[in-house]
Amino acid sequence: MLILNSAEVAQKTCRRWKKQSSIAFVPTMGCLHEGHLELIKRAKELAPKVIVSIFVNPLQFGPNEDFEKYPRVFEDDCKKLETLGVDLLFHPSVKDLYPEGFTSKISVGDLGSRLCGAFRPNHFEGVATIVLKLFEITSCNFAIFGEKDFQQLSVIQQITRDFNLPVCVIPHPTVRAEDGLALSSRNSYLNLDDREAAKQIPIALKLAKEQASNHSHQTTEELLEKIRPVLLEKGLKLQYLEITKSRYLLPTAPTDSISSLTLPHLFIAVYAGTTRLIDNVSLSSTV
Amino acid sequence: MLILNSAEVAQKTCRRWKKQSSIAFVPTMGCLHEGHLELIKRAKELAPKVIVSIFVNPLQFGPNEDFEKYPRVFEDDCKKLETLGVDLLFHPSVKDLYPEGFTSKISVGDLGSRLCGAFRPNHFEGVATIVLKLFEITSCNFAIFGEKDFQQLSVIQQITRDFNLPVCVIPHPTVRAEDGLALSSRNSYLNLDDREAAKQIPIALKLAKEQASNHSHQTTEELLEKIRPVLLEKGLKLQYLEITKSRYLLPTAPTDSISSLTLPHLFIAVYAGTTRLIDNVSLSSTV
Repeated sequence: MLILNSAEVAQKTCRRWKKQSSIAFVPTMGCLHEGHLELIKRAKELAPKVIVSIFVNPLQFGPNEDFEKYPRVFEDDCKKLETLGVDLLFHPSVKDLYPEGFTSKISVGDLGSRLCGAFRPNHFEGVATIVLKLFEITSCNFAIFGEKDFQQLSVIQQITRDFNLPVCVIPHPTVRAEDGLALSSRNSYLNLDDREAAKQIPIALKLAKEQASNHSHQTTEELLEKIRPVLLEKGLKLQYLEITKSRYLLPTAPTDSISSLTLPHLFIAVYAGTTRLIDNVSLSSTV
Repeated sequence: MLILNSAEVAQKTCRRWKKQSSIAFVPTMGCLHEGHLELIKRAKELAPKVIVSIFVNPLQFGPNEDFEKYPRVFEDDCKKLETLGVDLLFHPSVKDLYPEGFTSKISVGDLGSRLCGAFRPNHFEGVATIVLKLFEITSCNFAIFGEKDFQQLSVIQQITRDFNLPVCVIPHPTVRAEDGLALSSRNSYLNLDDREAAKQIPIALKLAKEQASNHSHQTTEELLEKIRPVLLEKGLKLQYLEITKSRYLLPTAPTDSISSLTLPHLFIAVYAGTTRLIDNVSLSSTV
């Protein structure tokens, strides 16, 4: 496995590869778990060359967020990537990607200011900006993103369409622990009590899915009223709980019946202790 | 010469070409004059495949600007491009480049809000957005931009650096009429009186260049005081007259001596009648 820190060298290497082969890319912030590894396995199926990046992107963290304490376990990550047969690990410094004089940003419009964007003001601008940069550096044909961060996935699909990026964005189903909790590098922050409370998230999602299937004429507010107490039962604190519609994740009205919505989707953000956790599920009858 | 309207088809065509050849690209808004044609000749020297786009980009026009009346002479343009041996003319519709649901934009930071950006609030955001899209569609190795729109050139160099775009941005010297006026599609708006007054622009630029060479210890304000009356002599109305420094076109103080500045550059924006004209010149002693 080649490990490169320089954007310039990585870009040249990838351009050379691209002439002979297609490239699949998995961007990560490291601290790799089984969810990441599944994305990489999917990448291996898609293209002969697989590139993974590890970069904790300061641009997507707010001033009071966990940029400094975000878990960094580079050597463990390297071993995992090596085992999977990754061709290139791109591991740049902040200075290399955001040198002095860097000023350009991508704004993604309303999609970036709803849901998590309402609580993390420049988060999706930061995500979109780094993802465009990484797409340009890796010249990837495919990029794989987990559905756990569904709004992030939607933002990346949006900029890919809007800027005509020649990349096929591949969504991958959320990978879950045995008890249903979505895998996340931030789960390592949870103490035993938090972890116990967090189990309510997949229970709530499952209930929502059942309700949407079996009682699809109920309204969004009726459905949310059923799952809210389930979520809160063990001490989670709710940040937001919303049902959106369409691929743009548009707001819905409390009186909209689930069955009337195109691509209804439920989003949850909670705090377990001081750790923020997000999850989501499609409420479409066909999915 | 191939003429394509569809971004999707153009992108596929360019990707196919790219595998065998490098590509040089000249984006235009049409109404081609000798300035454009020189950019295209330069493109022919740079790469075996040359692509020109003609697209009057609504995103870079303000609500009270000349989007509707901007000159469109597609058939004349085609003949000129054919004669020059252009390989592909990309001529998309607004709907094809900005379909329903389009929301993403590029912001370029302070560089986009100074000089022309102060008077045309979202202009450079619109320029940066369309240029990124066209770079992605054409997969060009080289893109050629005239120095007449020097701030635009600087914005494009900025986003190319910031987003790691694998494109070599080539500046091309301003092409001028015999009397020195910079060629511009908007010159067609000028009546005889306006055209006569507009001659003061190149006279002012020439004076500024001489002053900067021969009296480089004078301050920016001393220099501007000398050229301002020359500009205004025949009835031009001044929008702005500024000296910047550095590749970021940073503001300078009235008391800065020209010789103390890195890459000093003079920018002029005036109205000749109702027609807005811009021009610029480097005040560096070495250029």
